[in-house]
Amino acid sequence: MNIETLHTGLDTVWVVLTAAMILLMEGGFALVEAGFVRYKNNVNIIMKVFADITLGTLCYYVLGFALMYGKDVMGLIGSSGFLLGGDLSHLKFSISIDTYWLFQAAFAIAVISIVSGAVAERINFRVYLLYIVLMTALIYPIAGHWVWGSGWLGALGMRDFAGSAVIHALGGFSALAAAIVIGPRKGKFTAKGSSTIALPSNLPLASVGAFLLWFGWFGFNAGSTLTATDVRIGHIAIVTMLSAAAGGATTMVYTLIRYNRSDASSVINGSLAGLVGITAGCAFVSDGAAIVIGAVSGLLMMAATNWLEARRIDDPVGAFPVHAVSGMWGTIATGLFARDEGLFYGHGWHLLGIQLVGLLVLCAWGFLLTWAGLKLINRWVPVRSTEEEEEIGLDISYHGVMAAHQAHDFIDDEDRYLKDFMRGRDDRD
Amino acid sequence: MNIETLHTGLDTVWVVLTAAMILLMEGGFALVEAGFVRYKNNVNIIMKVFADITLGTLCYYVLGFALMYGKDVMGLIGSSGFLLGGDLSHLKFSISIDTYWLFQAAFAIAVISIVSGAVAERINFRVYLLYIVLMTALIYPIAGHWVWGSGWLGALGMRDFAGSAVIHALGGFSALAAAIVIGPRKGKFTAKGSSTIALPSNLPLASVGAFLLWFGWFGFNAGSTLTATDVRIGHIAIVTMLSAAAGGATTMVYTLIRYNRSDASSVINGSLAGLVGITAGCAFVSDGAAIVIGAVSGLLMMAATNWLEARRIDDPVGAFPVHAVSGMWGTIATGLFARDEGLFYGHGWHLLGIQLVGLLVLCAWGFLLTWAGLKLINRWVPVRSTEEEEEIGLDISYHGVMAAHQAHDFIDDEDRYLKDFMRGRDDRD
Amino acid sequence: MNIETLHTGLDTVWVVLTAAMILLMEGGFALVEAGFVRYKNNVNIIMKVFADITLGTLCYYVLGFALMYGKDVMGLIGSSGFLLGGDLSHLKFSISIDTYWLFQAAFAIAVISIVSGAVAERINFRVYLLYIVLMTALIYPIAGHWVWGSGWLGALGMRDFAGSAVIHALGGFSALAAAIVIGPRKGKFTAKGSSTIALPSNLPLASVGAFLLWFGWFGFNAGSTLTATDVRIGHIAIVTMLSAAAGGATTMVYTLIRYNRSDASSVINGSLAGLVGITAGCAFVSDGAAIVIGAVSGLLMMAATNWLEARRIDDPVGAFPVHAVSGMWGTIATGLFARDEGLFYGHGWHLLGIQLVGLLVLCAWGFLLTWAGLKLINRWVPVRSTEEEEEIGLDISYHGVMAAHQAHDFIDDEDRYLKDFMRGRDDRD
Repeated sequence: MNIETLHTGLDTVWVVLTAAMILLMEGGFALVEAGFVRYKNNVNIIMKVFADITLGTLCYYVLGFALMYGKDVMGLIGSSGFLLGGDLSHLKFSISIDTYWLFQAAFAIAVISIVSGAVAERINFRVYLLYIVLMTALIYPIAGHWVWGSGWLGALGMRDFAGSAVIHALGGFSALAAAIVIGPRKGKFTAKGSSTIALPSNLPLASVGAFLLWFGWFGFNAGSTLTATDVRIGHIAIVTMLSAAAGGATTMVYTLIRYNRSDASSVINGSLAGLVGITAGCAFVSDGAAIVIGAVSGLLMMAATNWLEARRIDDPVGAFPVHAVSGMWGTIATGLFARDEGLFYGHGWHLLGIQLVGLLVLCAWGFLLTWAGLKLINRWVPVRSTEEEEEIGLDISYHGVMAAHQAHDFIDDEDRYLKDFMRGRDDRD
Repeated sequence: MNIETLHTGLDTVWVVLTAAMILLMEGGFALVEAGFVRYKNNVNIIMKVFADITLGTLCYYVLGFALMYGKDVMGLIGSSGFLLGGDLSHLKFSISIDTYWLFQAAFAIAVISIVSGAVAERINFRVYLLYIVLMTALIYPIAGHWVWGSGWLGALGMRDFAGSAVIHALGGFSALAAAIVIGPRKGKFTAKGSSTIALPSNLPLASVGAFLLWFGWFGFNAGSTLTATDVRIGHIAIVTMLSAAAGGATTMVYTLIRYNRSDASSVINGSLAGLVGITAGCAFVSDGAAIVIGAVSGLLMMAATNWLEARRIDDPVGAFPVHAVSGMWGTIATGLFARDEGLFYGHGWHLLGIQLVGLLVLCAWGFLLTWAGLKLINRWVPVRSTEEEEEIGLDISYHGVMAAHQAHDFIDDEDRYLKDFMRGRDDRD
Repeated sequence: MNIETLHTGLDTVWVVLTAAMILLMEGGFALVEAGFVRYKNNVNIIMKVFADITLGTLCYYVLGFALMYGKDVMGLIGSSGFLLGGDLSHLKFSISIDTYWLFQAAFAIAVISIVSGAVAERINFRVYLLYIVLMTALIYPIAGHWVWGSGWLGALGMRDFAGSAVIHALGGFSALAAAIVIGPRKGKFTAKGSSTIALPSNLPLASVGAFLLWFGWFGFNAGSTLTATDVRIGHIAIVTMLSAAAGGATTMVYTLIRYNRSDASSVINGSLAGLVGITAGCAFVSDGAAIVIGAVSGLLMMAATNWLEARRIDDPVGAFPVHAVSGMWGTIATGLFARDEGLFYGHGWHLLGIQLVGLLVLCAWGFLLTWAGLKLINRWVPVRSTEEEEEIGLDISYHGVMAAHQAHDFIDDEDRYLKDFMRGRDDRD
């Protein structure tokens, strides 16, 4: 046994295992979202995540990876590696390209899954499928190239270890654009300007999702080292834990004091906000900074939730507050708290300035391309469900089934109407 | 620190972690099955999986492992290693026998869990316990010996990397035999020959299960290298992902076009079919082949589902379409697409022929022994639930409880009848 | 690449991955408990686990770790490492202190989560938050120091590999004290002395939890080696599996024979009891001993459940039977079955005696400090929910929301009362 072989083996299993953990986060996204939205749209939102993980994987294989990590053209775009073919010799790791691809694909799928929550309960399912292609084949890969794929933002010195900006702020601003283009759910805002509350369909289900996300996040952050011999792995893991704990604890105590009740949705989203916030700086900041980052992430998430309500923007699961706002904050915080380059460590405004430029570019890119993409698609096929589809619920409308059935035994010939309906034949003849 | 010690340590943690991932798949099986069957049988199907993992583990420890991996007798059966004792010196790995056993036990439990779905909602629970013994102590280990335990099929050159044939086709044909012997659920097929539809009790629950299975499959396929320094690990992981994505995407788009609705159960089973299909060839085929294998797996799964309906065979969760059909296809596809030996790479019909022989043997073995075993057991104790048990549901019949309770606070003395019933005293005195 | 660097890298990823698995067990605790308690307290019990993982992490970071693993003072307490600062040079591992801390924090959170089940459905939420501080900052760390942190019990020779005593018996006796101080749920015991039964709100949910716990336990036990080159890892994993299987199989067959029905809650708790039982001895006992330990754990768990009922102590999820009783048994069994030092291997009563002394000390410590702590808190703020809070359920009382909603679309202005309530404004003005 050769030491280099052993090293490659170790790095490979590290990256494969952490990639699998990130892919399990899709289960987390599906359940958090299903638990938060209304019951009649449960199946639909889970199917959206299945679409993310199936179509998204294929798109990223065919196009996305090449545009993101292919041979750089002028710092703007990658140009090789379509279908993992062509020259990828500039990618030098101990792990194989296959292994690297799997890890990156898991990231790409996470971005699109962020958007799925913001458009919940009212997007046309076919349009969502088209949007998956747009996001995983173009929007995310190109922006990702700028920071992580030898592009111009990375060259400028932007630091985003595991993606507070590239994954979460970009995804969150895309989510915002989509939520605005599609408009609020019917009944969410009344004529008088006040908003109404949609009760979560199933909080225990959402909690399962949160625990899966939390677990996967250790893969997300620590796995981003791409090598098991990176001495920062233990530190990355501990600050990830501390920030998540601080985010969750802050929202739990804040809602207890402010509203006299610990709000479950806020605690779940506060923990996730803490995880998003630490994602950029996990390899660069101290334990204490991680606690501050997490706590502020939780509070900003709550403020942003109220801001969206006041602006009459409907984001059913809080994709923008959790991902965009905490993601921005995490990227900025890296400019403040990075021990070797941050403002608070006496290294001046340089890194902070770059982080802000990068954020501005990534958020604008995600927002504008999503906006334009959906507006364009809308000329061809309506991006929004019909009123009737929304009213009866997307589960029945797009999937011909409801999430749960406890009473029926079988649907027999007497129920031919329903049976035909379930089988997908058009019931509106 | 010695390099050999390090190598052994690395291989050990790789196999232990992937074995744990495979064991978590039992949670996946339990939830997919519980989500697909009717509500009144939810607890029962989960208890079947608990029986798989508890009794199955013990049977494989006492008998199964020895018959599968013990000292070979004429290529037919293993003969040492009962209770992990005796001479196992022919098993040479960097990992310990204990570690190897754990991984293999996780496989054995998966086989029996495949069958649990096909007999859902109507098998006598005690009979199922007996059948677990039969499967994990005899049927699977002996067949496994032929391919993986220095038996005759392996010697012939059959290739089944992680078990499309040995696990899934064998398990799926056993499931078919069991479904036929036990007969369809009451009310599933009407006198006129048409079949009726059972609505899934809980699709979000089934989805949690699918995500757990998907996660575990990385352990299943990549862990089958049994050593972390196998250079194929990254490739195995990527083709596993691509095939699953292709299976899920194909069923999603197909049902959308064909029925105008993306069918959730089909998408879940399509993804699983893609995973089953790639299991034999994951170490041997290209990325492109993996996508083809996954897509075809999804379509074959749907065709097989319709075939079962037409044949009036009742397989409530689709064990045969997902495991047997995709498993057969995956085994055949290895004969077609294996880069070093496959038909499509100009290596002729040799491997394909062997794969077909092996499949025939394994499927027939699983089908016939399950058929004969259940027929034999039936002389002693009826394999099928009574009409009354089936009618009121197996949860109440065999476990004295229903899956969920939202209204009751306590069952007090006024409900003595129910209370006695819950405590398990015979309520039919 | 240097072999020492590789070794450190391997140990680091082993401990980080197993720590993540243990943290996922919090999801398991949350779901098992939510599934077992009544529906109206589902959100509350999940929020308790979120409190464990968020507040508990921060307390253990600020105080607990230092008291447990800081520089030893007279074998009684640690004295350095607050906020992970100060001199920790006596801790010598290949992994970093950060990595070690993460693993230990996951253990601390597990202890407090054991208690959360016993006080379910009736503890004042604010008091529970205070109790988390007490447990994770003081009670557990100090006792942990005695056994694992160069304290007097470890010096005496007590053996508790992964915590049957330090985690489970201590946690379980703390749970018992808390259950006694707080008293039984209203309606659990009638005037005539008989107990009434609370039906589990959701057994499939509880099962998801059990599978997550089972998965995490491989991290719990095998990860406790803290190094991937420990040759015992494979053995630890196999005995963990065998004991869990024996615990689950025993309860399944026992309830089938005794009550004519396999009781789902008993099987779930029996498997967990098997896991708890093997936790002390997993590195020291044989496969056969593991099966005996697991089977006895399952039976003792059932006996202890009946004992609690007879004593009119209300432990809604069985925290005492599963954790305290199986934990004690596992610690004692180590004195019996340890191959190098156990009574049954001819090494006399020495180890067994030490184990008993250690158990007595740890159980008494957990019981008494929890008792005293809660009695003290009770002078300041009532430890028990008000009758009204308990009656309407802790979900509405403390979190202003119910676990699931299937009918409502939005809560609009017509429901101002409910809307205000949901938003947390005091509805009792």
